[in-house]
Amino acid sequence: MAHVVSPLAPVNVPALPEIAGVTLAPAATGIRYKNRTDVLLALLSAGTTVAGCLTRSKSPSAPVDWCAASLKQGKARALIVNAGNANAFTGKAGVATVKAVAKAVAAEVGCTQAEVFQASTGVIGEPLNPAPIVNALPGLHQSATADAWSMAAQAIMTTDTFAKVATAKVKLGGKTVTINGIAKGSGMIAPDMATMLVFIFTDAKIAAKPLQKLLTAAVNPSFNCITVDGDTSTSDTVLLFATGQGAAVKSPAETKAFAKALDAVCLDLALQVAKDGEGAEKLIEIKITGAESDKAAHKIGMTIANSPLVKTAIAGEDANWGRIVMAVGKSGEKAIRDKLKIRIGGILVAAKGMKDQNYKEADIMPHMKGRDIKIEADIGVGKGKATVWTCDLTHRYIDINGSYRS
Amino acid sequence: MAHVVSPLAPVNVPALPEIAGVTLAPAATGIRYKNRTDVLLALLSAGTTVAGCLTRSKSPSAPVDWCAASLKQGKARALIVNAGNANAFTGKAGVATVKAVAKAVAAEVGCTQAEVFQASTGVIGEPLNPAPIVNALPGLHQSATADAWSMAAQAIMTTDTFAKVATAKVKLGGKTVTINGIAKGSGMIAPDMATMLVFIFTDAKIAAKPLQKLLTAAVNPSFNCITVDGDTSTSDTVLLFATGQGAAVKSPAETKAFAKALDAVCLDLALQVAKDGEGAEKLIEIKITGAESDKAAHKIGMTIANSPLVKTAIAGEDANWGRIVMAVGKSGEKAIRDKLKIRIGGILVAAKGMKDQNYKEADIMPHMKGRDIKIEADIGVGKGKATVWTCDLTHRYIDINGSYRS
Repeated sequence: MAHVVSPLAPVNVPALPEIAGVTLAPAATGIRYKNRTDVLLALLSAGTTVAGCLTRSKSPSAPVDWCAASLKQGKARALIVNAGNANAFTGKAGVATVKAVAKAVAAEVGCTQAEVFQASTGVIGEPLNPAPIVNALPGLHQSATADAWSMAAQAIMTTDTFAKVATAKVKLGGKTVTINGIAKGSGMIAPDMATMLVFIFTDAKIAAKPLQKLLTAAVNPSFNCITVDGDTSTSDTVLLFATGQGAAVKSPAETKAFAKALDAVCLDLALQVAKDGEGAEKLIEIKITGAESDKAAHKIGMTIANSPLVKTAIAGEDANWGRIVMAVGKSGEKAIRDKLKIRIGGILVAAKGMKDQNYKEADIMPHMKGRDIKIEADIGVGKGKATVWTCDLTHRYIDINGSYRS
Repeated sequence: MAHVVSPLAPVNVPALPEIAGVTLAPAATGIRYKNRTDVLLALLSAGTTVAGCLTRSKSPSAPVDWCAASLKQGKARALIVNAGNANAFTGKAGVATVKAVAKAVAAEVGCTQAEVFQASTGVIGEPLNPAPIVNALPGLHQSATADAWSMAAQAIMTTDTFAKVATAKVKLGGKTVTINGIAKGSGMIAPDMATMLVFIFTDAKIAAKPLQKLLTAAVNPSFNCITVDGDTSTSDTVLLFATGQGAAVKSPAETKAFAKALDAVCLDLALQVAKDGEGAEKLIEIKITGAESDKAAHKIGMTIANSPLVKTAIAGEDANWGRIVMAVGKSGEKAIRDKLKIRIGGILVAAKGMKDQNYKEADIMPHMKGRDIKIEADIGVGKGKATVWTCDLTHRYIDINGSYRS
């Protein structure tokens, strides 16, 4: 199926700067796609530390299992990614493939197997033959350059309609370090599932343990706050590599500055993933305040974001606040009907347990017709807050995922 | 929007027999709809006991709050239902309406207000004027008959595409008692939410406490095991009235026989609701075995049933078992990837952590093209089991709920 570029794709795409200690190379190996790159090798200088957040799925792919084990050592020298086959639900054959690839990459690069990180997306349940990847390694190793960021972002796409990149700079004691991120998601390859892969690189020097702490903190309000259809991939992976070739993150102030930049990169990429949600015509921001706790606010927000009734209403440009009330009630979190306040596009639509007296649907229509829909719900029971993002549910979602074959 | 009758509607609709102590009357009051009945009054003989299961939504409608309070006494003399306005999120005005209706029904029927049960579905957030209902009461009271079951089922419909009725008989010590049920759901009135209302009547004599126990037990494997889109209404209501005009349920064997018939009526109505899911073209049965517990099995089943990826694949007649693996993994319940077995239409498609060697997609296509799709997942970790039902996710769901106004 042909995919037009999402109408929500960013207009201004930054050119990612080089990062000391990182070189990249894409290759076209024909795993599943023709006439496009489908394998990415990233080479990392000695001393690179790594942190990761992996899918919570109880049936993770073989590469996810591999990364989980390798993360314990916290050191990385190479990342190998393929698109077209997820190597998920592939049994012993899948484990053998991951081992074969790790062995070949370690031999090519000159590192231990635990320093090789892997990710795969694409069709699931089909064996992934390691040969095309292994055979491409010498060429990839030789051709890797420091400026191949755009090509790297393209090589990991499946049915993404645009490549996703983000970058930020941080001043650390007079020196500047860079954070670059690339992501894919949540395109879909029939007959498979959406997957989000995110790879972030920095030249900052940070030990693996604090790096993990920073990544976990950055992932929670970004990637853990977006949803397209509430489905969790067996392959979702976020990896953060710090080469240590630039300045070190030392003081609490430096940690704070680095965290702020990392958060911004993660949020930027997360929103790009939501904007490329299958069939997306509108980005929906849902801001919850006044919940019993931040966790409760997150759950309420995600319940609204995952409600097909809310998402179809927004696709239809219908300011259906009744469905938002329903979703708040459904979340199971504490809510007081008569204290709940709902705003759409900044306009108060419901309060005190009923429709606001001054609310006129006509006032809200210009907002509903736009690309960026803003929903605010104040729950009225505490100080918990969260913001989550999703996209609308359109006919094209059904087209893409139904793969009507008859 | 015009609705054709669901292709899954039952072909043989039973004529519901009379039940001693129950008379029914519908009226057309024009609350929202023209040229159709929209209010139902059921009169119940003195001594009728009542049990109920109400929405778990934290923002329930005013009638739900009223029923919750009235259920404490366990006695009923009247049920009044309206379609077209849910009286939900209507603040103090909504409470005033419920009180006004209860007062008027109690005066008309000659009972206490706590013996009046109420349910409303339709648009939410709009005040419900009690006048049309109150004004219709004398006529309803006079015209109530024991044989108006079909008209009663029609009067509570919103955008249901067919009226839902079920009946069963039970022998108790040589005498036969009857159980009749009517239901509505999960049609939708833009700009509102789907709601399920179920009213069950029997002439059996059972005290309120054991009646509640029987109802709760019957609701769990039926109404709590169906989902159309995972959304929970503010108004979901199941009420069971026992007039006591027939034989009493006394012995454990009689209780068991009655429970079996009640379970059958509930399951019958629940499946009819799933079959009338918005845009439904296929009924999907999901049978989970081998989970850690029955509760875990239910959660896994509902996670599969609520997955838009699974539901769109089935709409497209695509035997996409990879998405079922994904949903099992996403449920958060214990699962061992390499022990998971998945069958579709009785054919083993995946086992031992990978696609089954003998599985050929062509074998399964006749099943996928049918109206009744059967999915079985054996989790391989315990003895927990559950069966849940849903329908596929089609373009018509988006049409119905998006109410594209541009």
